Amino acid sequence: MIRNEIIDAMLARKSLRRYEDRMPSDEVIETVVRAGQQAPFAAQLGSVLLSRGPKNVPFGAPLLFTICIDAHRLEAIMAKRSWPMVTSDLPLLLFGFQDAALMAENMVMAAESLGMGSCFLGGTPFRADEVIERYELPRRVFPLVELTIGYPAETLPPRPRFPMDFHLFEDKYPDFSDADIEEAARVMDEGYLAQDYYRKAKAMVKLEGDRAETFNYDDYSWTEHMGRKWGQWFPSPDVLLEQLEKCGFELRGPVRDSDADSDRPG
Amino acid sequence: MIRNEIIDAMLARKSLRRYEDRMPSDEVIETVVRAGQQAPFAAQLGSVLLSRGPKNVPFGAPLLFTICIDAHRLEAIMAKRSWPMVTSDLPLLLFGFQDAALMAENMVMAAESLGMGSCFLGGTPFRADEVIERYELPRRVFPLVELTIGYPAETLPPRPRFPMDFHLFEDKYPDFSDADIEEAARVMDEGYLAQDYYRKAKAMVKLEGDRAETFNYDDYSWTEHMGRKWGQWFPSPDVLLEQLEKCGFELRGPVRDSDADSDRPG
Repeated sequence: MIRNEIIDAMLARKSLRRYEDRMPSDEVIETVVRAGQQAPFAAQLGSVLLSRGPKNVPFGAPLLFTICIDAHRLEAIMAKRSWPMVTSDLPLLLFGFQDAALMAENMVMAAESLGMGSCFLGGTPFRADEVIERYELPRRVFPLVELTIGYPAETLPPRPRFPMDFHLFEDKYPDFSDADIEEAARVMDEGYLAQDYYRKAKAMVKLEGDRAETFNYDDYSWTEHMGRKWGQWFPSPDVLLEQLEKCGFELRGPVRDSDADSDRPG
Repeated sequence: MIRNEIIDAMLARKSLRRYEDRMPSDEVIETVVRAGQQAPFAAQLGSVLLSRGPKNVPFGAPLLFTICIDAHRLEAIMAKRSWPMVTSDLPLLLFGFQDAALMAENMVMAAESLGMGSCFLGGTPFRADEVIERYELPRRVFPLVELTIGYPAETLPPRPRFPMDFHLFEDKYPDFSDADIEEAARVMDEGYLAQDYYRKAKAMVKLEGDRAETFNYDDYSWTEHMGRKWGQWFPSPDVLLEQLEKCGFELRGPVRDSDADSDRPG
């Protein structure tokens, strides 16, 4: 491993959920946002909302950024040149997700470089309607993710990651053996347990239905946590499709005449 | 603006399309990929394919990374703990896009910190089947974007971005005036023209149909380029939906019995 200031900052980054009261200066805020802006791609489909805390901001952080996929802005510019938006919403969002996320990660690392920390809130899209109301968003703006930023009030270790041979594949995607999979699971589970992560975060996900709890914080770790999230949550795309529609993005395809009288969902 | 090594690197980044022949060392490659891995989120839905060039790599770059949304790996681990993937594919991809893109941007900036440059290829998802074949991808792995990396064989300026008041919105999303929109368009157009960007890149997008060309490289700039892309390309989501299906991701909903005999597209 080669080390330098940027690599060190990336390897040390972790999600921060306890913040000092101190409000970052306007210059610090502008620096973070400018650094984000310079990420790829040129279409600049990402825009940024800001609220100052600690009131009404998760974790009582001083800054709450909401990273949006913003087609409204691009369409306004295109309209001035008499171009309509023709690209359909799925490919548009495919690029928008990337523009917004690339920008967001630059903001995360810019904040780190200025002595701050941050935490993403991944659930934002599922309550996009609240964000629309809070910021009076026009149609064609989709709040992808929220990002709290501020000065750290705690010191945390970076979190475990998969072994490199479970992550980087040269020339051919491997056929994982049982041993490969067990080893990746072990590294993650032992890594999180060694940090006592889930106990400190009080982050055990409840079992749904009548299933009896058989874990406690001595053995509840990453694989069980992932299983409970991805094995229980969001079984239907409907909430997300509805929230996207509230933002003016239509992934179910336009309603055609032949569908209008159908009782079949589109 | 506050400046430091990380902020400077972010502000100086631009897409690099000419590379030295020199192959980065394995240690450099590992450093870039490790720095990417430490990006949020903990589910690690992104994985990385690598091919070494310059043969069969765009721009003759020494390194071609393909950034994937990888549910195969997570599902293999969940299966070991008897958890099935329940999350439907749209929310799964929503998180996967972010994991993969956040990781990719760390790789971009890690490469910059090691004296290299990079360029994303946004069209990868539209030829996912070729990537499946090249790397023998299992189902549930979606190639999101390719990223060439190597040592620069040219010196380029960073590209223009929107004015800050067209990008960062505190407390409320503004109603843009005509003047706001014209000003953002002017900044982008004059910025790209001043760099002679599109002429050097030979990047003029053709007008479709019978429309007569009225621009040349003296006046063809960012707004016209954006208009021609987003005003002409990808009018249907079908190619993307089909490629996603080839990767084992189903955004049109599962095929139900009542659909099986229908001649209507799903």
